[in-house]
Amino acid sequence: MRDFSADHRWLSINTATVRRQRGQDWNLLQILDACAARCIRAVSPWRDQVHAAGLDAVARTIRAHGLELSGYCRGGMFTYGDAAGRDAARDDNRRALDEACLLGAPCLVLVVGGLPGALTGRPAHQDIARARAQVAEGIAALLDDARERRLPLAIEPLHPMYAADRACVNTLEQALDLCDALDPGRSGALGVAVDAYHVWWDPKLQAQIGRAGRERLLAFHVCDWLLPTTDLLEDRGMMGDGVIDLRQLRGWVEATGFAGYAEVEIFSRANWWQRDGGEVLDTCIERFGTCV
Amino acid sequence: MRDFSADHRWLSINTATVRRQRGQDWNLLQILDACAARCIRAVSPWRDQVHAAGLDAVARTIRAHGLELSGYCRGGMFTYGDAAGRDAARDDNRRALDEACLLGAPCLVLVVGGLPGALTGRPAHQDIARARAQVAEGIAALLDDARERRLPLAIEPLHPMYAADRACVNTLEQALDLCDALDPGRSGALGVAVDAYHVWWDPKLQAQIGRAGRERLLAFHVCDWLLPTTDLLEDRGMMGDGVIDLRQLRGWVEATGFAGYAEVEIFSRANWWQRDGGEVLDTCIERFGTCV
Repeated sequence: MRDFSADHRWLSINTATVRRQRGQDWNLLQILDACAARCIRAVSPWRDQVHAAGLDAVARTIRAHGLELSGYCRGGMFTYGDAAGRDAARDDNRRALDEACLLGAPCLVLVVGGLPGALTGRPAHQDIARARAQVAEGIAALLDDARERRLPLAIEPLHPMYAADRACVNTLEQALDLCDALDPGRSGALGVAVDAYHVWWDPKLQAQIGRAGRERLLAFHVCDWLLPTTDLLEDRGMMGDGVIDLRQLRGWVEATGFAGYAEVEIFSRANWWQRDGGEVLDTCIERFGTCV
Repeated sequence: MRDFSADHRWLSINTATVRRQRGQDWNLLQILDACAARCIRAVSPWRDQVHAAGLDAVARTIRAHGLELSGYCRGGMFTYGDAAGRDAARDDNRRALDEACLLGAPCLVLVVGGLPGALTGRPAHQDIARARAQVAEGIAALLDDARERRLPLAIEPLHPMYAADRACVNTLEQALDLCDALDPGRSGALGVAVDAYHVWWDPKLQAQIGRAGRERLLAFHVCDWLLPTTDLLEDRGMMGDGVIDLRQLRGWVEATGFAGYAEVEIFSRANWWQRDGGEVLDTCIERFGTCV
């Protein structure tokens, strides 16, 4: 297992972690500068932040700083109420792939979607099995586009508390079942993103990480589960402030041969988003060494 | 599948559903009277409500009304920081068994506990595997007491969002693995409580309900998952107000041969607990017929 205590060579910052400091959006170019100034070597940007800052400007800044990407957030949202919705999602996912290629991302992270319409509070139906079937079809179709671009897709199972509105793939086992069905040859074109926040509770986690193996384990995200958790979406904790044994989890991940970045992704409306962005990044670096 | 549209013969009210109406505790004896007045045939009382009203008075009132129980809430909390904590939990669980016997409950529902200390915000450690091992030991020990009393234990898998602080048994598969390990002969002394709120998201749900079968399926709870859900604990929805396909789920449950009560258990601080208790019960009856 790699020693993370001496330096933060393998720390990546998911840019949502510092997206709106003290109530104001932190522009992605500022975030990239702040990361580079701290010798953070990698980031994983969100699409809306890329669009707000301008794709070309972001690509130039990434190159100028010599930054790598640990992923691109995000594609997916495959579930739909009608054919127009399905086609729009496909088009948008293709654009996400193109952006990921331009920025040099190693994979496009997929948040697959929940019941169609649920994110706006008006679910079209209650049939989660139908939504899951649409996800499988959507990934199968997008996989062709991904192979053309040699840009792997990483299915991110989300915590079951997001099953209705964000992602109906909710365990690593379920995500790997999809991978096996759609890419039985383990070509490397399809895999998973393992986010500690979403999967830490799973009694089958160690076994499923082993099942994923090097070919399927495309991204590794860390943060912490707080006690109490006061918001379902935006109350994630800084590593070390919660109950997840991140070092044990990293051990399981690295036992597969994974040797990439540990990406910090924290949504925290009431705490970390209220602080100075530099302070947040400095804390990420510190906790990366002591808790990851 | 039974027809629930014509009457509410198989409705049971978990008494937490009307525990504190408009900010004031509704005494359990009042709750029993209000249920009986509506021809509700069964309840599942919580221990703290029983203790507040007095065990003997509750037993007398239940008999006087001819009410049945669909369960007794709750035993469990097996995880501990030291031997004294373990022994105290064992003693308390034995008392819960005795109360359940006195009240004529068909099973004692087990919420197994999370990381020790986590419910008060001070987890003793981060080792959920150790907590799970304590749960297995605790159930194994209590099973002897339960067999003596001929009072079955029903392990209730809780939603993964409660893994840290309330229950580290988080899927039906995991609960059934415990049953298989501790009662391989399917004696009927150990089974599960299937609560729609906790398990609806699970892609393996139908298969695991089938695996449970008649011998292991001891209780069936219903409510709904709201969009959005604004509180992790006390924002459950009335049946029909959320995204759970309760009729499909009941179909899976009844396909095992289950022919018992569907028990309504709703924790709802901001909505149903703010209404008149009679209105809540009337709504439960109505939705039982249309949505369960």
